[in-house]
Amino acid sequence: MLNLTNIVDEGLSWLDGTGPHSDIVLSSRVRIARNIAGYHFQSGIGSYESLDIMKKVETTLSTRGYLKEGAFIELADIDDIERKLLLERHLISRELLGQFKNSGLIVTDGGKLSLMIGEEDHLRIQSLMSGFILDECWKKVENMERDLGEALDYAYHPRYGFLTACPTNTGTGIRASILIHLPGLVLTKEIGKVLRGISQIGLTFRGIYGEGSDVMGNYFQISNQTSLGKTEGELMDHLSKITNQVVEYETNAREILIRDARIQIEDKIWRAFGILKYARAITPEEGMNLMSAVRLGVNLGVIEGLTISTLNNILMFSQYGHLEWEAGRPLNKAERDVRRSARIRKLLANDEVL
Amino acid sequence: MLNLTNIVDEGLSWLDGTGPHSDIVLSSRVRIARNIAGYHFQSGIGSYESLDIMKKVETTLSTRGYLKEGAFIELADIDDIERKLLLERHLISRELLGQFKNSGLIVTDGGKLSLMIGEEDHLRIQSLMSGFILDECWKKVENMERDLGEALDYAYHPRYGFLTACPTNTGTGIRASILIHLPGLVLTKEIGKVLRGISQIGLTFRGIYGEGSDVMGNYFQISNQTSLGKTEGELMDHLSKITNQVVEYETNAREILIRDARIQIEDKIWRAFGILKYARAITPEEGMNLMSAVRLGVNLGVIEGLTISTLNNILMFSQYGHLEWEAGRPLNKAERDVRRSARIRKLLANDEVL
Repeated sequence: MLNLTNIVDEGLSWLDGTGPHSDIVLSSRVRIARNIAGYHFQSGIGSYESLDIMKKVETTLSTRGYLKEGAFIELADIDDIERKLLLERHLISRELLGQFKNSGLIVTDGGKLSLMIGEEDHLRIQSLMSGFILDECWKKVENMERDLGEALDYAYHPRYGFLTACPTNTGTGIRASILIHLPGLVLTKEIGKVLRGISQIGLTFRGIYGEGSDVMGNYFQISNQTSLGKTEGELMDHLSKITNQVVEYETNAREILIRDARIQIEDKIWRAFGILKYARAITPEEGMNLMSAVRLGVNLGVIEGLTISTLNNILMFSQYGHLEWEAGRPLNKAERDVRRSARIRKLLANDEVL
Repeated sequence: MLNLTNIVDEGLSWLDGTGPHSDIVLSSRVRIARNIAGYHFQSGIGSYESLDIMKKVETTLSTRGYLKEGAFIELADIDDIERKLLLERHLISRELLGQFKNSGLIVTDGGKLSLMIGEEDHLRIQSLMSGFILDECWKKVENMERDLGEALDYAYHPRYGFLTACPTNTGTGIRASILIHLPGLVLTKEIGKVLRGISQIGLTFRGIYGEGSDVMGNYFQISNQTSLGKTEGELMDHLSKITNQVVEYETNAREILIRDARIQIEDKIWRAFGILKYARAITPEEGMNLMSAVRLGVNLGVIEGLTISTLNNILMFSQYGHLEWEAGRPLNKAERDVRRSARIRKLLANDEVL
């Protein structure tokens, strides 16, 4: 069993911002849902069954070298604040926040690959990486799925494909998504058209915190809506193609902005930087919007000396759960806003902005 | 005759912020109006008369050592931009912007003492100094008035006192004013009450740019309204007493703010600093408001390492006329906003803020 304290370092690898197109696409994520044949689905599962799955998974991964480094966490062993931390790292889902009996999380491959046990489905394998790199994510997920499949018997229907608790996941059980930053399209008011287009071709967009979350800071998650009736390859190609298009639209929008409104854009960018650098209380919404402007500034070369990695770290560490985790206790809203601004100032101080 | 190019260095001495109470009272100003007996008032004056007055004044001041250093400027010799510069230095009045034939300005005593010739009245002697220091200003004005009076015959009526073009100046011909910064009273919403009180006791308040100007950046000019029927001493005492009271109210308001709303105030202050330090376009109104918050921050010890002198310099050099003077040409509004922000950034870079 791996060391539990590792979790605080996990799920951060994408923050380095080294992936392809990471000036626009922050991260790529692929996850698949699998259930084990012969066991009840999660909604009706017994404790003995859960434990059995957990053990089998651990043994299988262990013998295949997955658990040499990383973390294996039983959700029951960690507290609310730590669970919130993992949620914000996209390592567990909202479902696992409340329902954690016989649930587990395995993080491996420098945080690029993880496995939720006992979420809505028995298994959720996920890969999360920096930049626009869906194919690499899929490779990692596929490898783990194959390795586990050698020891476990996945619930599969010859006509429908892999069976899942929620019908939208049935089929390949795959969900692929990219987290994309679109300030140019928002500022040029083209975003509505682009998002409508996305919705019409079987993709869906959400805010940065997934289903039901508001769009903040011009960050959008774009993902496939269903996985039934298509191969993994088809789904991934479709999302990649559309993402390429959106990246192109965004690039054009940025060029137009800097051509037609350079002063206004530079002013907006530098003001955002000034406020982030000096404010003493920042709400999540404001923080996201300011960071969006500053990220645009770095991408456009308006701000020099500030790294994407610092911005990604701010995005991560200024979150609710991360602030509470650092404080070691629950925080009220006013306390969070103050600590958020302090955290941001500290992270910005790492870079020498010219 | 003194060197004309000197004017650009004149009228700046109060910017050092070394005067008493200069955390609240930026500057004190005393000016008196005098007309020379036997000459027409300005409204009906002939060229020969004007020239004659100008020469007599120059000779008198010269023999008394006033013109060893400083500037003697004939308004007709300088252009619109330079006149605007002098207006913003409070060295000439709006009247002299347009009507400058046979008008002159003498600046001496490190800019603390000046004399307008051919404004609304034949002579306007003025002293402008840092902080709350009306008595010193009055002394300087009184000395020059006496020295000039030894050679010139002031128009005087035994019942009304010194005669002036505008009846509100008749009597002592004195106007005393202080430029005071009252962000505490504005933020605690006490300012209305205080200003109403001031108006009821024969004083008047204006914006930083004098009669008819808007209040900006929480700066107020408080001055006596009339000078008839009172001695200089009484007028000065009255204004001093009220100023002392307002300073006390302001001090209390600041204490209440920092006690009851420290985080909000600190946040407001630091945000203002961040924007001033990084913005790329700043309007006059915004600039004044941001500087007001930063000045409060320096006064309260929230911002360390920034000097009042730097803030006073920003107040001075970010003005319309100063920006045009530096550019050497008229500027449109967008250009001014961009140059204003650049000037502010440059001045702030002189200090190392902790």
